[in-house]
Amino acid sequence: MSWTLTEDHLEDLARGAAVLGTGGGGDPYVGRLLVRQAIREHGPITILDPSEVGDHDLVVPTAQMGAPTVVHEKLPSGEEPVLALRTLEKHLGKRASATMPIECGGINSMIPLVVGARLGLPVVDADGMGRAFPELQMETFGVYGVPGSPMAIGGERGETTVIDTGSDNRRMEWLARGVTIRLGGVAHIAEYTMSGAEVKRTAVPRTLSLALTVGRTIREARENNLDPIAALSEALRETLYRNLRVLFRGKVSDVERRTEAGFARGRAQAVSFDGEHKLELLFQNENLLALVDGEVRCLVPDLICVLESESAEPITTETLRYGQRVVVIGISTPDLMRTPEALATFGPSAFGLSYGFTPVEELV
Amino acid sequence: MSWTLTEDHLEDLARGAAVLGTGGGGDPYVGRLLVRQAIREHGPITILDPSEVGDHDLVVPTAQMGAPTVVHEKLPSGEEPVLALRTLEKHLGKRASATMPIECGGINSMIPLVVGARLGLPVVDADGMGRAFPELQMETFGVYGVPGSPMAIGGERGETTVIDTGSDNRRMEWLARGVTIRLGGVAHIAEYTMSGAEVKRTAVPRTLSLALTVGRTIREARENNLDPIAALSEALRETLYRNLRVLFRGKVSDVERRTEAGFARGRAQAVSFDGEHKLELLFQNENLLALVDGEVRCLVPDLICVLESESAEPITTETLRYGQRVVVIGISTPDLMRTPEALATFGPSAFGLSYGFTPVEELV
Repeated sequence: MSWTLTEDHLEDLARGAAVLGTGGGGDPYVGRLLVRQAIREHGPITILDPSEVGDHDLVVPTAQMGAPTVVHEKLPSGEEPVLALRTLEKHLGKRASATMPIECGGINSMIPLVVGARLGLPVVDADGMGRAFPELQMETFGVYGVPGSPMAIGGERGETTVIDTGSDNRRMEWLARGVTIRLGGVAHIAEYTMSGAEVKRTAVPRTLSLALTVGRTIREARENNLDPIAALSEALRETLYRNLRVLFRGKVSDVERRTEAGFARGRAQAVSFDGEHKLELLFQNENLLALVDGEVRCLVPDLICVLESESAEPITTETLRYGQRVVVIGISTPDLMRTPEALATFGPSAFGLSYGFTPVEELV
Repeated sequence: MSWTLTEDHLEDLARGAAVLGTGGGGDPYVGRLLVRQAIREHGPITILDPSEVGDHDLVVPTAQMGAPTVVHEKLPSGEEPVLALRTLEKHLGKRASATMPIECGGINSMIPLVVGARLGLPVVDADGMGRAFPELQMETFGVYGVPGSPMAIGGERGETTVIDTGSDNRRMEWLARGVTIRLGGVAHIAEYTMSGAEVKRTAVPRTLSLALTVGRTIREARENNLDPIAALSEALRETLYRNLRVLFRGKVSDVERRTEAGFARGRAQAVSFDGEHKLELLFQNENLLALVDGEVRCLVPDLICVLESESAEPITTETLRYGQRVVVIGISTPDLMRTPEALATFGPSAFGLSYGFTPVEELV
């Protein structure tokens, strides 16, 4: 069923998107302000269930790309993703009937909403990452045969770039990242144009709704003095993200972070409150690997989320800092994201990690 | 008058293009092989005098961009610039009636000939640099109001990129250089699409013919045991490049060269045969400045050409090395390239040099 997204949803949505961002995906706070402004100017947004998209409808996903460390400082006006979509439409000689997230974490849950509000386009409740990932080829769309090309990039000065690498989505990422770096580290894009039938076949469904559920559950637990982690675990049980596991509780003891080659890369450490155990986190924009006392507890593509220990407020990699009291949770990804072809594209080996993938529900 | 370019012209053309490349522009030897192959497969090429191009004809210039140090090692197949032209045509929804060089030095005298032969398109005898320059905004086309955008880039794996920065040609260069670096340091492009009327108004005319004249003059002087420099000086007197001055004769004593940010940058020194005088050359792909004993003798946009001292064979910056016996000449550029707006775009200050432009014929 389609539903209408209003300003009242945004706080919960942003919080949920930050959880699904697994530390990355860009700051949803900035995205939330952009959506709020767009809704105030253009009215609320129609969210389409993927089952409602016509098989022959043309869906053009929109997103932001760049290092979260840069996004944090270089705010978009909201016009850039519209420019990207319009540029791609012009290149294709076709008009979009809807837009969609390519990524359901962080700011990229929000960017398609900005586009939807500004252009009066519905937004499909689905995405291609089922979380946040750092690179453009890391999409269920591509895993199941939809090419990212042609893609369009819109810059803040009205510059446009259209890249076409055929079926090679990795090459598309490589060139688009080069342009993004030249644009100052952040850009807005339209890519993975597909039919409604392809949305149904390749997208992770209902992840905007999922983000809203996650954000709302945390808020309501707080309001009712309940344990937000327990509430979240309960709420997820009915979704495609069935399993939540607490990986660690403790205090951040070290963060090493650098912006290089267009990404925020680094590692973080935390020590348990009793001082007995140590957590190590590795990230490239998003958290990739959680080790406790040297043993793997959760690894990509399963979600590794760092939350503030009392409020369960998500903490992104670019705001992680010494002394924060945190609870680190692992959440299982949908089966669609754990097939051999999916793991080849965004599993541990795609990030150069030498660990084979094991589901978090088996590890913890 | 239009004329037909055949395989027999290529050796002279390549030599002349290397002289006009002023040390850069990419190795014309590689370009010569590509044109020879294209002529053998597709027949000779029609060269149009700019006066013969219809005012409403669509001219789409083609070129290679990249660091000459890379071009030297990473040979194109010849399909890449055709891909760039076809991509731009598709983007514009129009077909080119001719192609043209954007640069008359080095490999870029050759690339449009490859395109012309392969596609059966005439090539206009004109260009936008009147020599070689390292950056895409350094064009008389842009100086006199023709935008470089939209531009298309073709890669060796069939990747295409279309960049549109409106009237900001410097921004276009910045983004295109980013893509070129990601393509491995060399790319092929189509840009500065213009009408025949714009060719007549903004291009430096008859520079393919000029390259041929320069190359032929040097060869014939050698064959007749005449001084090639004197012969060249004589031949240029009747062209827009009226003045030739000998700046220095001596032996290369030092070369410092690095490939950075997509360019070959560096400096070279030479010592006169009597050991009394010292030449210093500064280059960014092309030679920019010649100092003799610390005094300016020639500076960009005037041509600074390093030739082998006996044969007058041109030496490009990437093949310059210790011990070479050289004669360094300066050649005056056409008036079109010395206006205040032209000097603002490719004069000394555009390269961060603190010297004001003085014509070589006044300096020596």
